[in-house]
Amino acid sequence: MKHLLSAADLDAATATLVLDTAAEMATLAGREVKKLPTLRGRTVVNLFYEDSTRTRISFEAAAKRLSADVINFSAKGSSVSKGESLKDTALTLQAMGADAVVIRHSASGAPYRLATWVDGSVVNAGDGTHEHPTQALLDAYTMRSRLGRLAGLSVAVVGDVLHSRVARSNVLLLSTLGAKVTLVGPPTLIPDDLGTEVSYDLDAVLPESDVVMMLRVQRERMADSYFPSAREYARRYGLDGPRMRRLPEHAIVMHPGPMNRGMEIAPEVADSARSTIVEQVANGVSVRMAVLYLLLGGKS
Amino acid sequence: MKHLLSAADLDAATATLVLDTAAEMATLAGREVKKLPTLRGRTVVNLFYEDSTRTRISFEAAAKRLSADVINFSAKGSSVSKGESLKDTALTLQAMGADAVVIRHSASGAPYRLATWVDGSVVNAGDGTHEHPTQALLDAYTMRSRLGRLAGLSVAVVGDVLHSRVARSNVLLLSTLGAKVTLVGPPTLIPDDLGTEVSYDLDAVLPESDVVMMLRVQRERMADSYFPSAREYARRYGLDGPRMRRLPEHAIVMHPGPMNRGMEIAPEVADSARSTIVEQVANGVSVRMAVLYLLLGGKS
Amino acid sequence: MKHLLSAADLDAATATLVLDTAAEMATLAGREVKKLPTLRGRTVVNLFYEDSTRTRISFEAAAKRLSADVINFSAKGSSVSKGESLKDTALTLQAMGADAVVIRHSASGAPYRLATWVDGSVVNAGDGTHEHPTQALLDAYTMRSRLGRLAGLSVAVVGDVLHSRVARSNVLLLSTLGAKVTLVGPPTLIPDDLGTEVSYDLDAVLPESDVVMMLRVQRERMADSYFPSAREYARRYGLDGPRMRRLPEHAIVMHPGPMNRGMEIAPEVADSARSTIVEQVANGVSVRMAVLYLLLGGKS
Repeated sequence: MKHLLSAADLDAATATLVLDTAAEMATLAGREVKKLPTLRGRTVVNLFYEDSTRTRISFEAAAKRLSADVINFSAKGSSVSKGESLKDTALTLQAMGADAVVIRHSASGAPYRLATWVDGSVVNAGDGTHEHPTQALLDAYTMRSRLGRLAGLSVAVVGDVLHSRVARSNVLLLSTLGAKVTLVGPPTLIPDDLGTEVSYDLDAVLPESDVVMMLRVQRERMADSYFPSAREYARRYGLDGPRMRRLPEHAIVMHPGPMNRGMEIAPEVADSARSTIVEQVANGVSVRMAVLYLLLGGKS
Repeated sequence: MKHLLSAADLDAATATLVLDTAAEMATLAGREVKKLPTLRGRTVVNLFYEDSTRTRISFEAAAKRLSADVINFSAKGSSVSKGESLKDTALTLQAMGADAVVIRHSASGAPYRLATWVDGSVVNAGDGTHEHPTQALLDAYTMRSRLGRLAGLSVAVVGDVLHSRVARSNVLLLSTLGAKVTLVGPPTLIPDDLGTEVSYDLDAVLPESDVVMMLRVQRERMADSYFPSAREYARRYGLDGPRMRRLPEHAIVMHPGPMNRGMEIAPEVADSARSTIVEQVANGVSVRMAVLYLLLGGKS
Repeated sequence: MKHLLSAADLDAATATLVLDTAAEMATLAGREVKKLPTLRGRTVVNLFYEDSTRTRISFEAAAKRLSADVINFSAKGSSVSKGESLKDTALTLQAMGADAVVIRHSASGAPYRLATWVDGSVVNAGDGTHEHPTQALLDAYTMRSRLGRLAGLSVAVVGDVLHSRVARSNVLLLSTLGAKVTLVGPPTLIPDDLGTEVSYDLDAVLPESDVVMMLRVQRERMADSYFPSAREYARRYGLDGPRMRRLPEHAIVMHPGPMNRGMEIAPEVADSARSTIVEQVANGVSVRMAVLYLLLGGKS
């Protein structure tokens, strides 16, 4: 594995290797082995064209625990323009000796272009509405860790699937790993080309689900209004207490964060024992350690 | 000591332990032992909801000298809202393995709320108009180092005490350590509930003072105008050369920085041998090393 | 060498020592020795009053490879004002134990003032229209590495020389090292006090040049318009394919970046084998490692 651009790049064996490696990282952290020398002397650049403090911090923490040097490059607000400029930025980072570039970009496909220009590894940390593969890996890790397996799980992904890179990467990875995904949301927000089950009725899907993954509502898209109102959205597709109680006993509730409490998820649900939201964040660091280790470790 | 939220949390023995530990840190630095392995593998997050480059840098330098990994999280300008959002941010940092969170927030009390949500240590780096305990510790360190003791010192704290977290934390800590504090400023800017001496006449207080601590004037508050003008403020409560010469021979002049030269303090005073302003900054790093060491060191 | 403020501070022996040391750094990096312990425990502060992500990152990477702690201090947008405030910032950084301060400032001469206030080393990373000495060093390194020598080379520096700190530092350093510089550009943009050859005719100069160094056009200055238009500028002083072919076989094309592709340099030229633009970036890290090593290494 040279780059991690899409969840589709991962076959079942490779994805499982990432999850197993992440589990080892978590075990070491649990034993207070918090700093590994593996990537000492390696440089990881966080190249963020969009703000995302939590994703940036997660990669930064992961790289630092592996003893890599981390350089943060927030391109937002700078005068860098599109197209060739990304190329020149890429060549600059390459020349400075970046061993890995973690890129977040508003344009779908930007990480692919970046990967053609640099010798180092590229990790897609979210590109437009396209993909966010490490999120899918941490979600899969969380499901496996809570429910003991991935094959055969029924996973409902709920909300604005159309614009969600999280949903897209999850569908790809979960299919590879043998889980069954059902997309749930208003018809205008569910694409029909993802090759999965679709439902417009959340209440009907919940009793059959082992996992329900609530997507973050992009409030700014609400204004364009697929829906009369936020309240109407919450009523039909928000997960509140009564709805949560339709889930099987063992089912878990996931959310990639940050949450809109009271919109797509009620506080009662977010803070319940079924909720894995905080675990997902912790698992994110382990999974990103595993990804950086597997991409870069072999060279050291 | 789990957290450092208020100067009131420190009894005399604990405060003295912090000061003594800081003195050891300074001694080691003086011997060119600039990097200690104590906090290797620990992660310190600087969570700053308000800009404060100098405080952030001081904590960052302190943590790095103890070999901790430092992650800067500037929440300013991001879309994080109040209330629950701080909670979700807290849970995120916690999940990412933050061993200590250093928080600066515009809301008085925010560090207390944070401390209820995270397992790690919380250090209050300034909350609203409430407290700034490490500033009080570095001030006490500076007094003790210049004057040889704290018990029995007469300390004048001068300016806009009402809105000053620096003043509040100093009053609390200095009382614990046996110094006598007199608050000096215009009547509208001196609270009457701090249990200390009060004076409205700076000239009368100076000859009796071992320490005079000038507070920074918040120019934006001047506009609301407790005073007809900055010039009028400087005339009555600014420390200029003639006023400085009313102090006893041994007395020192302190300021938490950044200074408004020519407003609350004249350049002649700021740059005089009595001024401890630069020492305070240096002592700030030693004191913050001591605080992080005492909060986190025991676990390693 | 205590500070690096101007390329004029470097005599031929010292400049050559920097280049030789940089070559050693590059050799070690080529052997995968990417982390040197030399500056462990040293603190390097990047004090940037102007945005310059690529220069900041280059110094940051250089310092981290030498195991220094790096603290980034972006003064832009903060309320720091001019004059005394730079002094107070300097004293603060000094007190915090900065061993070196790398400063970028919009005011020509700011690094000189800074150097009078701090005990540590000051590196000028660009001050106004004045100087940018590490850029000149990396340019000299690149020429020597591509062409085998500096003495006797003919170097054309092309564009808005008047406002270019890169040009100014290059003229100084190249003269010291025995190269012959010709400044090329519109008469209004060529100062007459640099003691070098001047030409207003790029086509005439190219066949005689071993090196052609294209300066970045400051688009915002174009508006004030020394020229009718960007197109007109590109036509007369831009380097395109046909012009590049007027160069001798062995000649190289340099640019400090970031480029305005299609303005001062055509994409065909930027991406040609003659172009050293990416090498310059890589060499920048080696040269800055050498500078920090020589300024700070002796004390450890």
